[in-house]
Amino acid sequence: MIIIIGGGPAGRIGAMRLAGAGAEVRLIEKRKIGGQCLHDRCMTVCALNDVARLLEYARVQKDLGILDSVPSVSYPAVRRRMREIQEKLSTVLDAETRRAGVDVVYGAEGSLSGGRVYIDGEEVRADAVLAATGSRAAIPDIPGADLRGVYTYQTLHDMEDLPRRMVIVGGGVVAAEFAHIFRAFGSEVDMVVRSGLLRDIDEKVRSAAVRDLAGVGIREETAILSIEGGTRARSVRLSSGEEIEADAVLLATGLVPNSGTLQGLQKRPDGAVVVDAHMRTSVEGVYAAGDVIGPPYLTPAARREGVVAAENILGRGTAMDYACIPQAMTLRYDYTITATGTDGDAVTLSAPAPAGPGSFWDVARGWTGLAQVRVDPGSGRLIGAASGVPGASIPLSYLGYLMRRGITVSEFDDIVEVHPSTDGVYGLARYAAGMLRDKRE
Amino acid sequence: MIIIIGGGPAGRIGAMRLAGAGAEVRLIEKRKIGGQCLHDRCMTVCALNDVARLLEYARVQKDLGILDSVPSVSYPAVRRRMREIQEKLSTVLDAETRRAGVDVVYGAEGSLSGGRVYIDGEEVRADAVLAATGSRAAIPDIPGADLRGVYTYQTLHDMEDLPRRMVIVGGGVVAAEFAHIFRAFGSEVDMVVRSGLLRDIDEKVRSAAVRDLAGVGIREETAILSIEGGTRARSVRLSSGEEIEADAVLLATGLVPNSGTLQGLQKRPDGAVVVDAHMRTSVEGVYAAGDVIGPPYLTPAARREGVVAAENILGRGTAMDYACIPQAMTLRYDYTITATGTDGDAVTLSAPAPAGPGSFWDVARGWTGLAQVRVDPGSGRLIGAASGVPGASIPLSYLGYLMRRGITVSEFDDIVEVHPSTDGVYGLARYAAGMLRDKRE
Repeated sequence: MIIIIGGGPAGRIGAMRLAGAGAEVRLIEKRKIGGQCLHDRCMTVCALNDVARLLEYARVQKDLGILDSVPSVSYPAVRRRMREIQEKLSTVLDAETRRAGVDVVYGAEGSLSGGRVYIDGEEVRADAVLAATGSRAAIPDIPGADLRGVYTYQTLHDMEDLPRRMVIVGGGVVAAEFAHIFRAFGSEVDMVVRSGLLRDIDEKVRSAAVRDLAGVGIREETAILSIEGGTRARSVRLSSGEEIEADAVLLATGLVPNSGTLQGLQKRPDGAVVVDAHMRTSVEGVYAAGDVIGPPYLTPAARREGVVAAENILGRGTAMDYACIPQAMTLRYDYTITATGTDGDAVTLSAPAPAGPGSFWDVARGWTGLAQVRVDPGSGRLIGAASGVPGASIPLSYLGYLMRRGITVSEFDDIVEVHPSTDGVYGLARYAAGMLRDKRE
Repeated sequence: MIIIIGGGPAGRIGAMRLAGAGAEVRLIEKRKIGGQCLHDRCMTVCALNDVARLLEYARVQKDLGILDSVPSVSYPAVRRRMREIQEKLSTVLDAETRRAGVDVVYGAEGSLSGGRVYIDGEEVRADAVLAATGSRAAIPDIPGADLRGVYTYQTLHDMEDLPRRMVIVGGGVVAAEFAHIFRAFGSEVDMVVRSGLLRDIDEKVRSAAVRDLAGVGIREETAILSIEGGTRARSVRLSSGEEIEADAVLLATGLVPNSGTLQGLQKRPDGAVVVDAHMRTSVEGVYAAGDVIGPPYLTPAARREGVVAAENILGRGTAMDYACIPQAMTLRYDYTITATGTDGDAVTLSAPAPAGPGSFWDVARGWTGLAQVRVDPGSGRLIGAASGVPGASIPLSYLGYLMRRGITVSEFDDIVEVHPSTDGVYGLARYAAGMLRDKRE
């Protein structure tokens, strides 16, 4: 019997891979299958953003005189319907997981003490364990963080209606995504960023993304000192001395691995369980995957880690490869970046993206996104790509794969695109190929 | 000097490739650069469909109680703004083409008599010619086809306002795209199809696409006998004996190559100029590319043919390869199909696509599109893929390339996807790999 603790992307996909190979697998899920990805993070952003984008596109088309009005959003309805759909998707995942042969146990807590496995405190025999207990929102240690009206992405669902004024603490992808959403919904939004907004993201992509946050008040190099209010958040006090009114505060200040119930394993100071490239922990027979092992805190990485753990439990030596895992952000457009690594000699080319589905009417405002490629001039290999356009998320998966396989820019001549398309990457890669050809001649 | 006749995708891209290689290139464009792709077809569908989709998504969200209303569309404004943007894009293409070193001449007509080249009737010396004169809408030989209120995709821009009731004649991709658009805009739409609606498209993809035409009256196996009305179309008479009222009739009954001004070249009965895989016509030094050589009448194919012609003019032997050119259709979702060929032993798998950006709220109606793969069980090679989801167009370009390179389904384990995503192809390919693995074990 193999025990999986946690039914999020890492645990669920790992469990299915094991069951598919004929192993007896029991998955222990405290809450609902699908993890935070389905219930709190990816799909919540997807749901809210599908409404936000509709509103923004409607505004553009109204300004052009094409539409007569922009609809108003009922946030209580969004909240209720979103939950209904998330529940429905959870049911689909549950059925899929069971169909794959996994025994799913809900409502129980799995824990470890070294190599010993417990379900609700009772020890069970296991040939191997995969700990995939995920992460939770980090809560900064400031006065007022426990007031009503203060949320993390995990408790945001408790927010009953649209705030008039929301302060978002944090400057990463999640902070930006929610700022964009609530601004589009009509709230006044202020972001308070300790360092720089989206500072880990390539500069050109970052400035494209920041366009999507027009109308959001952005305070960088600013810390939050406290959240004020009697029982409910009323304002936040900043290191600049400023005090901003807020009827909702969203703390988007990072994630912490959920490893409290996993005792006897080697961990990093933040609680992340230490694993090797085979997802083996410091204890034999105990594997870990997903957010509990720390960054990048991405569903596709977690899924893959789950598969790698499963393959190694099955005795098929497979190592995790973090090269070319696409980073994605969902604002008015999608922003996706993928790279095989860095190379000092490489050349980066950026260009405006072509207008296409989802961005045709944006031509009127003179901006339809961007494409970027990074090329090693010696070999002609594509070593990085980024795209900030409607629909940028999907193709970057395949591009990342092609990059890992060593595709050169001259090979892009063989890619026959669909037209019209918002994808500017292949065009830019072809342009780079032409440049390299001319240089050689 | 190399003369290019026609500034659509084939001529323009061919010209740029030639100029980029240092050749002296003159491009003769009778009307505006960008061809029908920009002015009449691809980009017109893109423009109208970006509005149509917004309306449809707004209807779903209104039904769920999320939005309070669905905006109304002003068709005259759509028409005017669309033209403005198409003009703007044309200016961008003009600048890009000139920047590449192409001498663009507008308002003149290029013609051929065997190997002799004429511009507005005056003979010019040319080292080589690329004829890229495109195609035009076929007009069926029926009484009333010349009445006011009868349009093709080329004259549709003359339609001043939304018809109350539109009859679309034809059952191909273009007919379906316009039926979807005008239905979403609020017109009553009837399609009259001589054979079967979308009959050349894979059956599963077809039935998915037909969902997007809900509310459109579809008459298959029905011919149109005449269009009735005094000076303006009022109704159409059908082979079934029925007469349908119509204040607008759109003839979407195929394309005819524009080869009237190209004399002395071998042609097929429909006027298509005969070329070999190097885009050489029957006359030495004369090349042809794009719609004028006949089907598939697709921009990416035309672009590629233009590049192949240019490469051969430059003396670099390159052959056109039509394998894996993606077929695409834009309705409520994108539908894209690509295949390396057919194989009797191959296995086709279809599955519902995952909910993701653009389809989250469609979970409520229980349909978020489909994914399909076709696999050769012996080699494990992916030999066909189809996708009917929001954003399906972009990735199929890369998938087509991977298929041409011989990707096997087991290699999909190495593709790290972006999440959430509407793309179900990689998941299905992985599933197929598992099936093949299990079969072998």
